[in-house]
Amino acid sequence: MQSFSFHNPTKVLFGENQIANIGSQMKRDKIDKCILVAGGGSIKNNGVYDQVVQSLEKNGVKWVESWGVQPNPTLDKLDEIIEFARKEEVQAVLAVGGGSVLDTGKAAAAGFFLDNIWDAYIGEDRVTKALPIYTVLTLSATGSEMNGNAVITNMDTKEKICLSSIHLYPKLSIIDPSVQNSLPFKHTASGAMDAMAHIFEYYFVNDTALSTLAINEALAKTIIESTDRLQANPADLNARSNLAWSSTLALNGITGAGLGFGDWGCHAIEHAISALRPHISHGEGLGVIFPAWIEYLSEKDPMRFSRWAKEIFSESSATFGVKHMRLKLSGWGMPLSLRDLGIQQDELPILLDMIVKSGTIGNVFKLGRDEIHILLMLCF
Amino acid sequence: MQSFSFHNPTKVLFGENQIANIGSQMKRDKIDKCILVAGGGSIKNNGVYDQVVQSLEKNGVKWVESWGVQPNPTLDKLDEIIEFARKEEVQAVLAVGGGSVLDTGKAAAAGFFLDNIWDAYIGEDRVTKALPIYTVLTLSATGSEMNGNAVITNMDTKEKICLSSIHLYPKLSIIDPSVQNSLPFKHTASGAMDAMAHIFEYYFVNDTALSTLAINEALAKTIIESTDRLQANPADLNARSNLAWSSTLALNGITGAGLGFGDWGCHAIEHAISALRPHISHGEGLGVIFPAWIEYLSEKDPMRFSRWAKEIFSESSATFGVKHMRLKLSGWGMPLSLRDLGIQQDELPILLDMIVKSGTIGNVFKLGRDEIHILLMLCF
Repeated sequence: MQSFSFHNPTKVLFGENQIANIGSQMKRDKIDKCILVAGGGSIKNNGVYDQVVQSLEKNGVKWVESWGVQPNPTLDKLDEIIEFARKEEVQAVLAVGGGSVLDTGKAAAAGFFLDNIWDAYIGEDRVTKALPIYTVLTLSATGSEMNGNAVITNMDTKEKICLSSIHLYPKLSIIDPSVQNSLPFKHTASGAMDAMAHIFEYYFVNDTALSTLAINEALAKTIIESTDRLQANPADLNARSNLAWSSTLALNGITGAGLGFGDWGCHAIEHAISALRPHISHGEGLGVIFPAWIEYLSEKDPMRFSRWAKEIFSESSATFGVKHMRLKLSGWGMPLSLRDLGIQQDELPILLDMIVKSGTIGNVFKLGRDEIHILLMLCF
Repeated sequence: MQSFSFHNPTKVLFGENQIANIGSQMKRDKIDKCILVAGGGSIKNNGVYDQVVQSLEKNGVKWVESWGVQPNPTLDKLDEIIEFARKEEVQAVLAVGGGSVLDTGKAAAAGFFLDNIWDAYIGEDRVTKALPIYTVLTLSATGSEMNGNAVITNMDTKEKICLSSIHLYPKLSIIDPSVQNSLPFKHTASGAMDAMAHIFEYYFVNDTALSTLAINEALAKTIIESTDRLQANPADLNARSNLAWSSTLALNGITGAGLGFGDWGCHAIEHAISALRPHISHGEGLGVIFPAWIEYLSEKDPMRFSRWAKEIFSESSATFGVKHMRLKLSGWGMPLSLRDLGIQQDELPILLDMIVKSGTIGNVFKLGRDEIHILLMLCF
């Protein structure tokens, strides 16, 4: 078990009707005016927007609104929000939506105090403070509601980068799983894959952090079981709740305790894929890459993947585990190959260039261009 | 899955050599002077005291010392520490020891600002602030290093009460499992039972919080496996680390998410037992009470305990699960009956009076005097 630091100051209110508390919580923190960051408008259809603004009004918290954050959120939109937040002299960010909205809101809270937020992404500036961040989650997937990460894509340079800082942890996140009942199953499954991928990025680092490995198995199995239940019945609130909380825990620090920095090779590849094709969701990309990554690396180091196959999928080897995982994803209607994602073999050189831009990827297994090439060929 | 609030702002530094960071962390928080709260002196033998004061000295943090906190810590000692802390005008509390030392230090941090800390224990005053709390843990058991609880015994009234407040969460806790290598196995086993009891107090509330139930099973099994390994080899640092982190998680909020307030009936009984006999450790008392509680209540509601028996002990029924648990505790050399703890049957009336002082105990199963009497008879 490796040494580690754990610090997650985010307060979470979880359950039905918790959204009604957003205004009083902000008032308690003496927030007079915030910027409400949102996506394409689904929160107006599922009732979340009404719940939020009623609570703000009731508690005398003023707000301005910035709509239109897209999946795989962009630097252009982020810069626009930062400028608006400054002009309106807001005291806090309230992000209402899924991971893309939350990441954008969080990055805006830090960018509010920086000359150029992208400089922090490329390591040429540092986040030393941020506006207080409040979130209301509408899609469980990225774990952004309870961590200090914010992933943004620069469309000009085709770079999708994750910024991490203690200042990016939300002060408060509200997770009402019932608002996710109206989601198309495609989004639920993609979110589940995203959460599983966060667990798996840590899982293969060592075999000594027994407490964390056992927790990670508990969470991965709960995610799979809950997603199966939701496929059968999207209104199963208990399955929805368990999927939501497992997704939050999947990237809040708990799943990495004693497992170092994790690997993150699959995420590096997926970030390039969805930078190339912004319509691809993070979970869809990861669902294609992760089985191939395990398939490829388990040939080199089969023992490292045997516990995973046995504990998560009750299979006797990594090979059977990968088959089982693909069967599960296929049953959920997820894409299984790069071709399914609309990527052709002749685009591989461009993709490889994007992936290896900063050298090798991964920590447990460091992969260079040639190895990633082989891995990607397994994805066709 | 029940609605819940989760908020745990404690920063944890976990692993070998982390104690060396205590001074720099306090300096960063602009602490000039603290009160070091400690127990009977074991930290002078295991090297922890030297590591702590070297780090404080190196970073220019001044300190005064208050020694002599005993297991089942008392209000008398707490009052003495509060008075000393005020006289010395300290800015923070640094508790170095096991759960009793940490609980006393945490209560002192709050008591510093109150006329009479015991009033907060009996609900006649409220904790609204506290000095910043730093801890260095030397015995994994109570989880006090990462929660807002502080249990104190009033010897005059023979009451042992738990005070909980968001202000009692340590700002920073350092857990170096290697300093526990020199512990007698008795303390390790007792701590393991304490941690398991925290998990079990939540475990039987409902069967819908699947993510939390699965995590709780993961932790309970890791605790048992690690304790077995430490019995065979007390210097097994990896087992020590996994036991330590599991014990911390057992009562940091994670194990209760979606499980309401938990039951806490067994804790109420044990608090009376160790208020009557202060030499009895919390874990020893719980090891006697918990199997009897399950034995007694599984006759009324066998289904509620079947998952526990199956998942934790691979047994087919609660009856076999209880037998397995007692066998495990007996194998660890733990007391199995009230008689083993030195309590006689003719003391039951006194004990019952103490337990039912504030009415029934427990939340999942509310138990009155007659039922507790039967339960205690099962402990002989």
